[in-house]
Amino acid sequence: MFNFQIHATDGRARTGLIETDRGTIRTPAFMPVGTAATVKGMHPEAVRAAGADIILGNTYHLMLRPGAERMARLGGLHHFMNWEKPILTDSGGFQVMSLGALVKITEEGVSFQSHVDGSKHFVSPERSIEIQRLLGSDIVMAFDECTKHPATHEEAARSMRMSMRWAKRSREAFEANPAPALFGIQQGSLYPDLRRESAEKLIEIGFEGYAIGGLAVGEGQEAMFEALDTAPELLPTEKPRYLMGVGRPSDIIGAVLRGVDMFDCVMPTRSGRTAQAFVMDGTLNLRNARHAEDAGPLDAECPCPTCAHYSRAYLHHLFKTEEMLGPMLLTQHNIWHYQQLMQGLREAIAEGRVQAFAKTRLDRLSAAAA
Amino acid sequence: MFNFQIHATDGRARTGLIETDRGTIRTPAFMPVGTAATVKGMHPEAVRAAGADIILGNTYHLMLRPGAERMARLGGLHHFMNWEKPILTDSGGFQVMSLGALVKITEEGVSFQSHVDGSKHFVSPERSIEIQRLLGSDIVMAFDECTKHPATHEEAARSMRMSMRWAKRSREAFEANPAPALFGIQQGSLYPDLRRESAEKLIEIGFEGYAIGGLAVGEGQEAMFEALDTAPELLPTEKPRYLMGVGRPSDIIGAVLRGVDMFDCVMPTRSGRTAQAFVMDGTLNLRNARHAEDAGPLDAECPCPTCAHYSRAYLHHLFKTEEMLGPMLLTQHNIWHYQQLMQGLREAIAEGRVQAFAKTRLDRLSAAAA
Repeated sequence: MFNFQIHATDGRARTGLIETDRGTIRTPAFMPVGTAATVKGMHPEAVRAAGADIILGNTYHLMLRPGAERMARLGGLHHFMNWEKPILTDSGGFQVMSLGALVKITEEGVSFQSHVDGSKHFVSPERSIEIQRLLGSDIVMAFDECTKHPATHEEAARSMRMSMRWAKRSREAFEANPAPALFGIQQGSLYPDLRRESAEKLIEIGFEGYAIGGLAVGEGQEAMFEALDTAPELLPTEKPRYLMGVGRPSDIIGAVLRGVDMFDCVMPTRSGRTAQAFVMDGTLNLRNARHAEDAGPLDAECPCPTCAHYSRAYLHHLFKTEEMLGPMLLTQHNIWHYQQLMQGLREAIAEGRVQAFAKTRLDRLSAAAA
Repeated sequence: MFNFQIHATDGRARTGLIETDRGTIRTPAFMPVGTAATVKGMHPEAVRAAGADIILGNTYHLMLRPGAERMARLGGLHHFMNWEKPILTDSGGFQVMSLGALVKITEEGVSFQSHVDGSKHFVSPERSIEIQRLLGSDIVMAFDECTKHPATHEEAARSMRMSMRWAKRSREAFEANPAPALFGIQQGSLYPDLRRESAEKLIEIGFEGYAIGGLAVGEGQEAMFEALDTAPELLPTEKPRYLMGVGRPSDIIGAVLRGVDMFDCVMPTRSGRTAQAFVMDGTLNLRNARHAEDAGPLDAECPCPTCAHYSRAYLHHLFKTEEMLGPMLLTQHNIWHYQQLMQGLREAIAEGRVQAFAKTRLDRLSAAAA
């Protein structure tokens, strides 16, 4: 089962539900990243308690360790990592090309060496779909090339068109071995005509959802928003739209206003490990000595367990002494912060006040940055 | 309030309750070590859920970071680390002398440099008690010198007698600023006459509980048990007896049979971070490739959340990929294993079958080691 219902719209922003056999996903949704079959530093029960309805798993990391066939023998990714709710898996393409060594891309697929042990691998659209099925993914992503930035129109067109041929092969491989949902990925860099061509080709193939790829790759927020002023609208209104690898809270707010339904990013988890806290008024570095005697919580407005029970002084102490509990508690807070933002956006859209909600949040972030 | 009641004895083994204002401690008790205001890798709620009634805090680490006066300003150790149950603090002596640099011991006390930043410090019996009171400790330990091993009779006597003079000064400082309980520490190395002299001097001063110090310092289990054949009996029957820094499960079983009520050790937490699991049949190294496809739990007899939800294959994967969740889940299991052992000992003593319980457990450990 894979069913998307939009319950309310507010401008171009939408809120609704994706129903799957493993549970319902409230949109707009933020998916914490569980790279190697774990959301780093969090028990899965705590990820769920933070409000996450779905997490993302990384095909590249999991195909190397523990390996896709081994994962299938062990009962699949959900059972392996004790997460019974939905999982979206990426196609592996982005990380094969950015983390692998000796990468060689041909029409057939991508050959590369593992960054872990140097072993040789080959991933094609067919193999990517097979791996994602072995993992037991609920939402499978088409195999694509994330067009580099910057790219000339010619480079972006060539890359996008290959990704569209791969999207068709992904669909065919998926049909031979179906799961609840396969998402296609729009490419085209920052060129509106290529974004349109990509969307048309994807729609012709037909997918259960559509991702917007190739953004948040260094173009900056302004250029990303300019692309998002048109890119989402080129995709079917009635299907979920997923902006891959985004982003900061202000990125997410801006993208939701432009009609995006799903997000993933390592930022809350990675920042949690490096002492950076997301709060209503921007970010805090917990290593900073000014927190050493601060008995207050990270964020007085946050309902998370970290803010309920621990002071900034304690978190500062944990990072200074390099205790594991520092990253554990801060990751928990950051995931809550993101999930609370999504909940706020969903409620604001449902109540027709998303512009005011966004303005309030963005004004506070701007004031803190000033 | 500090009240110890023995509810049952079985041979020399005893089971009972220590009542304090912060909660009741079931004995024999194992205290997880919370060195720097955190039991490494565990949320405090999980330490409690494992069955721990009390944890240990390290005066040496806490006096350096965040500092005793700062801790007091922040509301004390319990509030700082979100642990409302009892805390026993060591006196700092052992770690001052083993971790500090340029250590100089005189009758007055110990001067040393911090291993963290080289700053200079001085700890006397009076300052140790003051620090422990600033931390907010429920059970304060007298300041002593942990006699090195091996030691000649003359060395052990000189060291023990200084510790006894320090014990008297600790008691006097404590009386000026009392907390629920102060424990004296018996020394005397492996010499029965010195253990007796130390016990007599401590009893003359008078304490709410008595620790056995200077064991588990390299003498081996056989020599430790030989010392424990007489050392606990020299201490008052009606007061708790605490064997410091012990140990492996077999050490604890043997010490409980010899009349010890309380234990602490870094072994379950440290082992949890280095992939070593304590199970009914000994230990497992989760990095070993033989666990890579093992879908079974760490220990089929263990009721802990790690064993309920995760396979050996998953834990192996987490350690191979150096994911934080590996140490988190394995530490949790090890703390549960220790607490389950204590619960088994308490029930067996209450039911008059502790010898049979001990034999069954020790036979399995011996068989696994063979």
